[in-house]
Amino acid sequence: MRPSHRQPGELRPVTITRRYTRHAEGSVLVAFGDTKVICTASVEESVPSFLKGKGQGWVTAEYGMLPRSTHSRIKREAAQGKQSGRTQEIQRLIGRSLRAVVDLTMLGERQIVIDCDVLQADGGTRTASITGAFVALSDAVAGLIASGKLATSPIREPVAAVSVGVFGDTPVLDLDYLEDSGCETDMNVVMTGSGRFVEVQGTAEGQPFSREEMDALLDLASAGIRELITLQQQALAR
Amino acid sequence: MRPSHRQPGELRPVTITRRYTRHAEGSVLVAFGDTKVICTASVEESVPSFLKGKGQGWVTAEYGMLPRSTHSRIKREAAQGKQSGRTQEIQRLIGRSLRAVVDLTMLGERQIVIDCDVLQADGGTRTASITGAFVALSDAVAGLIASGKLATSPIREPVAAVSVGVFGDTPVLDLDYLEDSGCETDMNVVMTGSGRFVEVQGTAEGQPFSREEMDALLDLASAGIRELITLQQQALAR
Amino acid sequence: MRPSHRQPGELRPVTITRRYTRHAEGSVLVAFGDTKVICTASVEESVPSFLKGKGQGWVTAEYGMLPRSTHSRIKREAAQGKQSGRTQEIQRLIGRSLRAVVDLTMLGERQIVIDCDVLQADGGTRTASITGAFVALSDAVAGLIASGKLATSPIREPVAAVSVGVFGDTPVLDLDYLEDSGCETDMNVVMTGSGRFVEVQGTAEGQPFSREEMDALLDLASAGIRELITLQQQALAR
Amino acid sequence: MRPSHRQPGELRPVTITRRYTRHAEGSVLVAFGDTKVICTASVEESVPSFLKGKGQGWVTAEYGMLPRSTHSRIKREAAQGKQSGRTQEIQRLIGRSLRAVVDLTMLGERQIVIDCDVLQADGGTRTASITGAFVALSDAVAGLIASGKLATSPIREPVAAVSVGVFGDTPVLDLDYLEDSGCETDMNVVMTGSGRFVEVQGTAEGQPFSREEMDALLDLASAGIRELITLQQQALAR
Amino acid sequence: MRPSHRQPGELRPVTITRRYTRHAEGSVLVAFGDTKVICTASVEESVPSFLKGKGQGWVTAEYGMLPRSTHSRIKREAAQGKQSGRTQEIQRLIGRSLRAVVDLTMLGERQIVIDCDVLQADGGTRTASITGAFVALSDAVAGLIASGKLATSPIREPVAAVSVGVFGDTPVLDLDYLEDSGCETDMNVVMTGSGRFVEVQGTAEGQPFSREEMDALLDLASAGIRELITLQQQALAR
Amino acid sequence: MRPSHRQPGELRPVTITRRYTRHAEGSVLVAFGDTKVICTASVEESVPSFLKGKGQGWVTAEYGMLPRSTHSRIKREAAQGKQSGRTQEIQRLIGRSLRAVVDLTMLGERQIVIDCDVLQADGGTRTASITGAFVALSDAVAGLIASGKLATSPIREPVAAVSVGVFGDTPVLDLDYLEDSGCETDMNVVMTGSGRFVEVQGTAEGQPFSREEMDALLDLASAGIRELITLQQQALAR
Repeated sequence: MRPSHRQPGELRPVTITRRYTRHAEGSVLVAFGDTKVICTASVEESVPSFLKGKGQGWVTAEYGMLPRSTHSRIKREAAQGKQSGRTQEIQRLIGRSLRAVVDLTMLGERQIVIDCDVLQADGGTRTASITGAFVALSDAVAGLIASGKLATSPIREPVAAVSVGVFGDTPVLDLDYLEDSGCETDMNVVMTGSGRFVEVQGTAEGQPFSREEMDALLDLASAGIRELITLQQQALAR
Repeated sequence: MRPSHRQPGELRPVTITRRYTRHAEGSVLVAFGDTKVICTASVEESVPSFLKGKGQGWVTAEYGMLPRSTHSRIKREAAQGKQSGRTQEIQRLIGRSLRAVVDLTMLGERQIVIDCDVLQADGGTRTASITGAFVALSDAVAGLIASGKLATSPIREPVAAVSVGVFGDTPVLDLDYLEDSGCETDMNVVMTGSGRFVEVQGTAEGQPFSREEMDALLDLASAGIRELITLQQQALAR
Repeated sequence: MRPSHRQPGELRPVTITRRYTRHAEGSVLVAFGDTKVICTASVEESVPSFLKGKGQGWVTAEYGMLPRSTHSRIKREAAQGKQSGRTQEIQRLIGRSLRAVVDLTMLGERQIVIDCDVLQADGGTRTASITGAFVALSDAVAGLIASGKLATSPIREPVAAVSVGVFGDTPVLDLDYLEDSGCETDMNVVMTGSGRFVEVQGTAEGQPFSREEMDALLDLASAGIRELITLQQQALAR
Repeated sequence: MRPSHRQPGELRPVTITRRYTRHAEGSVLVAFGDTKVICTASVEESVPSFLKGKGQGWVTAEYGMLPRSTHSRIKREAAQGKQSGRTQEIQRLIGRSLRAVVDLTMLGERQIVIDCDVLQADGGTRTASITGAFVALSDAVAGLIASGKLATSPIREPVAAVSVGVFGDTPVLDLDYLEDSGCETDMNVVMTGSGRFVEVQGTAEGQPFSREEMDALLDLASAGIRELITLQQQALAR
Repeated sequence: MRPSHRQPGELRPVTITRRYTRHAEGSVLVAFGDTKVICTASVEESVPSFLKGKGQGWVTAEYGMLPRSTHSRIKREAAQGKQSGRTQEIQRLIGRSLRAVVDLTMLGERQIVIDCDVLQADGGTRTASITGAFVALSDAVAGLIASGKLATSPIREPVAAVSVGVFGDTPVLDLDYLEDSGCETDMNVVMTGSGRFVEVQGTAEGQPFSREEMDALLDLASAGIRELITLQQQALAR
Repeated sequence: MRPSHRQPGELRPVTITRRYTRHAEGSVLVAFGDTKVICTASVEESVPSFLKGKGQGWVTAEYGMLPRSTHSRIKREAAQGKQSGRTQEIQRLIGRSLRAVVDLTMLGERQIVIDCDVLQADGGTRTASITGAFVALSDAVAGLIASGKLATSPIREPVAAVSVGVFGDTPVLDLDYLEDSGCETDMNVVMTGSGRFVEVQGTAEGQPFSREEMDALLDLASAGIRELITLQQQALAR
């Protein structure tokens, strides 16, 4: 039995709220249960220096947690003077995941910066971030089309993410904090609307995992992500 | 006429939402019009090293803005590797303002850390932060009393803050971003429930200001803060 | 009775020594009693990047304390790898105070950098810095005029600063270290030759202060600053 | 055809040289073709502060590249003042991979620090690092046993790592730099002697990958790691 | 002919002013011509952690230049966030030079921190710093003896420093900025009262130097330092 | 008797291995006994900004030690976020030493960056670095000539370095770690093929040293460097 009393393949209640704040070109509050993340997309009419004059755009991401988004307060990274390894790992993952579904040449010489800031954490902040960020990115791209800066969308297909893990002996979907802490294996899966993988990151927290466990986890994640992509499409249709 | 069409002495609509996030001992979303700040209070059962063994507690504050809380994206301070002078100035102000109404000896050897994170900025983020932070602090203290860790409250009286400025030739209350940008003089006032000042910070942005203007601004601020303190009390009574 | 045996409205002996060091375009040693600060003004024929091509100049300031300017040695900020919040607050204040009396458009596309370095501290380092910095700035501007780079002075009027505070129950002028440590309220006032305020920063160190106390402190500061401006003019006339 | 003219499932020539430098408790030069990494294991008789008094040890890793280990010189991270996100990601991966096969309680309150420094890079530096680091760790543990500090080895089983990717349409093993640059998908796999996974990190560089491709890559990686573990055992037996 | 019109073996006018500032246990303004440095000695009743419990003291030094001590303004190291390599090299040299004449065991478990801050630079700041620092150190030690904390002085003999160089083809003593810029070879020599060397640092700026030049430079430096030590003793006798 | 049982004027076995790694334009492993350093030379077709458009090139150096090159592990500077004062001192020395034998105008507007990374330390890492770096630099220059980018070599003559010290009462050549720790005086000498000095850095670790000792040390160093230059020439001839 999961601590959350959910079925093995059951997502937490997921809500995706668009236009959450006023200034950003895309602004989404995504909630996976008690995990809540603001994802904003900012359009900048320039590209990083390594891309100057190459005729293509860029999508990048930054991630942060409010100091008291967690059970006990974590130190503010701005006050510490650096981002932790975990933060950098997550923001690199978010950026790669989004770039995988965007035709950067079609985007033109502009950059879309995604900021994912965790208001409240209860496990799965990186997967909620990717899932919400895709919606914010879609809104920013829609704005570029509406304003005539882009003729057609450079987004090839949707992308979303979920965590899976082996809790007890059972593979389960969308781990909350309690389940995540109790898991032997933890896997984050990023998948597109066409069912292909962008990232698969499995980590044995305790016991290494077998090929059979891995297969079961991937099945669970694929089904969960299909549900998330439906929820993204519903949010974008509203 | 103010850009906001408000009367000179009229506050923006103010809302104070308690228990906004789950983990913090006090968690408040404060809105001054379109300015929205999460203020959390975290209780830590230890004090900074300069107070070890002195038989008193401490209240301190940190402040940050989400990168896209503003019209155009500002760089993330955690990625920059340092907090700006403005950020440090504001967080020092918030900390001093709250300490002014707390009996630190009565608090015991513990620290309350206030985090003010701006979700959306439209002028007055520091005054909204102080006003919301007082409510978060009150909730954290109430929790200490409820759990038997404190017998009586070390909070002596409420404290709140508002900005005032000379717009055109008229002194006006609670400047939004447009008004702030167009002001000759900008003053932030922090005042207690008993009508005494904790901080008065007046700055001539353009023209230096006369003693008469200063007097008018202080009158306006005093009235505005009295309203804010009533709103704090109503929120705390809910 | 003040520890310094001064009358409530009495400044410490103030000396302003011009041409204190050789290389700077303006170089002033200012002493407010035992507080001694070197203020230099450096003219740079370029502006910060945010002003490039805008047809105006800039005045900015940096502040530091020699490690043993104080009773016990403070850590060298260069060795610590960052400037403290207090340092940044002070240098921002000095810069704003000087810009308030300079017509930046008349200055042309150049920058004047003020460096205030405290050789010996005994309270009031920021007010002595502003008072000395104005004289260094004046010398630098005079040099620009003498060399034909400027036709007329962009300085609109003099500016000086002083601290005031409530010591015991008495409002007193120009706090030294002992008085500052014993004060309930501490206010720094920056005022121009025409008697208008550029900055008023009042802080309750212990007890919040009443409107009446504030009024008395402003009266005291105004009189003190008028004296300081006379001393500046005498120094500049030598 | 692979640029390296290897068969799809063929490793590069792998050499593992023990006792490569004098001072470290374990010191290994590992070469995967032209990729050469020094892996040292340093035994420290203390644990990081978060483990003090918990009766267990720790294994951690740091990673670096010599500035000219690469085709064109990369900036020295020590001179830059920080480690890149990539560096942190890799050193966290190495540390987790080794901890997965060590019983930290049996290790006692001591820490083994692994340093992986790349002398020459030609793709696969992180997988070569893990593979070499395991041998250095084994030598350090053997030293603890020889000196009587440990009675039995806390190492549960060997661990090694390899990269796989889809080059053209063919899944291939152990990518060198040229192949890595030309790959659509890149996966790093860390597996134990018993054939269970510790880490699986698959990333779509260009096209997202299908479940079938993933399965083929895992098969290839499993076979490659079995070979690498044999080579580790032969090196340790010398 | 030297630009300064001095004889090859002639020092600039040297002045050593004791008790220059109030708070430090030793405070000296040293001038070598237009080069002016404040040297303070601060006594701290603790030692760095690497010496705790070893029954000996420590002498260390820090060095800085005021931003406008130089012809054109140099960036403030505190604002840059780090000390330059040159700064670190100089402060390490000052510290070693003083430790060479102090019996650290006799000093007891305390530290004397020397701060050398350049008010005005005209070549030879490091040699002026060492020469002045020795006098500040002597005053601090005298204070320890006067207060009964030390019975006898741990200073074994005086130490001073001077620069020498080959200007044109002539070896000259005590280079000012103009001479230093025009020199082929630049040597800093630190010597004790008994005529033994503590540091000799010769650097070919342009042409490498011969053994004969080196011998001539050492002769010149030895004579110069003997003069400086006489000046130190005179200052200490006042 | 020296701990190493060498004669006073006897170098350790020195080996110089060219083309040690693949990518750099010059790559040398130099060993002075158990001290082993990789020296690479990287040619960059641009110069630092302070030399842009001046029609000359630049040679600079960076230095590092692998964390476990030493008896006990030292902290990785990249993880610490800064280079130590010692590191900066050494890399500045290496850079100056090489520039002393290169005609920077003949080099053209390009930069050669030397990286010296210590794989194993046993005293004399800076002198081994300089000696090896000269060979790497020579190979890089030969490459520029071979590719037609340079017509003739800008290298005027060879340069090498060695340490000398007074061990017991005997001046000895090329100190290893044990001897270095036991020395009263330590001197690093950098000399050219024509027997002229580029750098002489003598430091009294314990007792200050006399002029006679200094003379004896310079004699010893000169003879040692002549041997090293012969070894460099032999290596370059292979």
